[in-house]
Amino acid sequence: MFVPGLIERKRDGGALNPDEFRELMGAYAAGQVPDYQMSALLMAIFLKGLTREETAALLDGMMASGSRLDFSSLGRPVIDKHSTGGVGDKVSLILAPLVAACGVAVPMMSGRGLGHTGGTLDKLESIPGFRTNLSLQETQAQIERIGCAMIGQTPEIAPVDKKIYALRDVTATVECVPLIAASIMSKKLAEGLTGLVLDVKQGSGAFITDADRSLLLAKTMIELGTDRGCPTVALLTAMDRPLGRACGNALEAEEAIMGLRGEGPEDLHDVTIALGVEMLVLAGEKDRAKAKQRLEGALKSGKAAEAFQKIIEAQGGNPACVDDPALLPQAQEVEVHYARKAGTVLKVEPRTIGRAVVEMGGGRRQVEDAVDPTVGFVITARPGQKVHTSEPLASIFAKDPAGIELGRRALDAAIEIGDGKAAPLPLIASRVTARGVEKLA
Amino acid sequence: MFVPGLIERKRDGGALNPDEFRELMGAYAAGQVPDYQMSALLMAIFLKGLTREETAALLDGMMASGSRLDFSSLGRPVIDKHSTGGVGDKVSLILAPLVAACGVAVPMMSGRGLGHTGGTLDKLESIPGFRTNLSLQETQAQIERIGCAMIGQTPEIAPVDKKIYALRDVTATVECVPLIAASIMSKKLAEGLTGLVLDVKQGSGAFITDADRSLLLAKTMIELGTDRGCPTVALLTAMDRPLGRACGNALEAEEAIMGLRGEGPEDLHDVTIALGVEMLVLAGEKDRAKAKQRLEGALKSGKAAEAFQKIIEAQGGNPACVDDPALLPQAQEVEVHYARKAGTVLKVEPRTIGRAVVEMGGGRRQVEDAVDPTVGFVITARPGQKVHTSEPLASIFAKDPAGIELGRRALDAAIEIGDGKAAPLPLIASRVTARGVEKLA
Repeated sequence: MFVPGLIERKRDGGALNPDEFRELMGAYAAGQVPDYQMSALLMAIFLKGLTREETAALLDGMMASGSRLDFSSLGRPVIDKHSTGGVGDKVSLILAPLVAACGVAVPMMSGRGLGHTGGTLDKLESIPGFRTNLSLQETQAQIERIGCAMIGQTPEIAPVDKKIYALRDVTATVECVPLIAASIMSKKLAEGLTGLVLDVKQGSGAFITDADRSLLLAKTMIELGTDRGCPTVALLTAMDRPLGRACGNALEAEEAIMGLRGEGPEDLHDVTIALGVEMLVLAGEKDRAKAKQRLEGALKSGKAAEAFQKIIEAQGGNPACVDDPALLPQAQEVEVHYARKAGTVLKVEPRTIGRAVVEMGGGRRQVEDAVDPTVGFVITARPGQKVHTSEPLASIFAKDPAGIELGRRALDAAIEIGDGKAAPLPLIASRVTARGVEKLA
Repeated sequence: MFVPGLIERKRDGGALNPDEFRELMGAYAAGQVPDYQMSALLMAIFLKGLTREETAALLDGMMASGSRLDFSSLGRPVIDKHSTGGVGDKVSLILAPLVAACGVAVPMMSGRGLGHTGGTLDKLESIPGFRTNLSLQETQAQIERIGCAMIGQTPEIAPVDKKIYALRDVTATVECVPLIAASIMSKKLAEGLTGLVLDVKQGSGAFITDADRSLLLAKTMIELGTDRGCPTVALLTAMDRPLGRACGNALEAEEAIMGLRGEGPEDLHDVTIALGVEMLVLAGEKDRAKAKQRLEGALKSGKAAEAFQKIIEAQGGNPACVDDPALLPQAQEVEVHYARKAGTVLKVEPRTIGRAVVEMGGGRRQVEDAVDPTVGFVITARPGQKVHTSEPLASIFAKDPAGIELGRRALDAAIEIGDGKAAPLPLIASRVTARGVEKLA
């Protein structure tokens, strides 16, 4: 394999074949292809694209490098949900125990905060003692025992993806549909799923802000999953404002707990239920209305909250948090933020909010950065809401007055109040399956 | 400096500013920017281009990382020639001593064989004892003493260029006009020149085979040189067939010696004189006819050959080679190659010939490969020539019968004989200066 020749072909708009991708991924995993060649190839892919066949071949090459979970002896559907990432998106913390409480195995493998978005792992780790670095064996055993595990990418799962992902992050090759699709699917398919639901975010706070490209991403992942025996469905949901009210790790964990009790914000609840319905349908539930009832029932009966307690306990955390969220770490400084003028809330820009959480210490600028779980925002202002001067819009949670000041400035920049009309995206715009796109709003 | 941000901007078609290039080159030279980020940036530059201002800023950033020769106290014009690389191009071996014999200081810094092309350093090193790795100090002293040195890139000269060049070579980012221009000019300007002549090769054997792009390369380098106080002129010359007859290191050294005695092939002589005229004009000679006379006179009088002997002696080589080229290393096996049919020689494809020399051991496939100076070809067949069956077309020089067989096959593939009309490029097509393009043929 002559790597510069492969790079040259892609650079000039040609295609690589499946054998070449397999050999390349294997050699890269084994350290035989240096990072500088891979990063040049990734940039060529970013700018010249990959065909459907190439994307599939890349995925297969990546998967061949790692291990897979195997639930074939479990005799139960195994379904996961993946979100393309947003601000305030704590859906996974509610959805995994909720769907597990409905009898579906959920091997939920998540990531850390990335760029302006938060990460499920960081949110889970705000629960005192919670351990996300389970081994593949521990994960398999826990799912067999209690039906759910919430973990990070283990070293055995798609190791090439992990290496490529780290490289893309520092070489400006992240926002590329086929690379994103292959990266996500290499991890999800390694979970040994019988079905997958994707939450593809749209709008200014999504990684991919262009609607056509986010639809393309959904379609690409659906095709990759379905072709590999994992039926895959996507919902396109709004990320032109934060989801729910809380943004920041412990604040989001608390809001998720409220959600598990049926006391969370409506938009968060609606997205969670919609994704849960898709998961139950993939798990074999024929009646969508029934699926919804089952989910609502698990929330109301406390079974979902109980399932979360079991997961927390199994992974070393303090399950009492679910009954008493005040056990979660609390910020030193809290300040209420008020509207500086009357009018309509036109926008709550999620990117500005997400970046502020990072700057306040709630995310990472470098991989090795420690995360302060306590900082962030609870934003009650919603696009379309009429507000009067001095009406409370949000609370700022920070570790010191400088953090409060950062938060103040971010809220002033993010929350736009004016005379016009707000035009938020529909919360759940479309449902995408292998058969096509169904408009829902 | 946030390198991924710079890569992203270039990826999206934006421009980097001079401060950014300077800082980036400095940090890369210091090992603070990893190769994988540089290679991603180089691929983005390859595919998105650089503006005039960016190319200049890149060059300045590269030059700031290294040292320069300083001939300001010499009181003489200091002129060099650079060729973009071809097959059979031994012009430098004649031109440097020839122009030095006319009173101009010539600090000739050359490269090794690259791809299908030969390198001046490899040709010089076929002269027994000849040492090309002079230090910057030795070079400066030798030029002050005898007016000419023929050396390789020293570690002090444009070290960033050397690092980037090695990276481009293995990441498919070589054939890129602004990167080529900045790389060449970073080395040439570090020679402390008062003028520079470029031999920009055109045709199938050139690195850049597209005529528009080779003209763009010439114009870019002329602009970079002229703007930095080094008047630069280019001749566009033919590389759709080998230059002269000999292809292979010692064979070319021998042909160069013949050229210094006025006994070389006509095309080689004409290109050498044309480039020499430009060098003398840049050195202050107002009368082009007079410049030509001076050059022809130095050949005829033996002064040029004598200057070469002085250079060889100064650099540890055996100067007797100039009087007796049989002292150069000789191939084990020689075979004459005959025309297999009658007709017109339509083509002598230089790329095929150059690659064959490499395969026969006369070039490198890896940086560390040793070069066999003896192997190669002497090709007498010229495009347009009528030949009869069994007419000698060339001689093959090899180290063993397998090499002869390689050579035979290459000549069969490279020399096309048929009924049509040959359409070789004009030997010297145009002269390009800061003022524009002057057609010469």
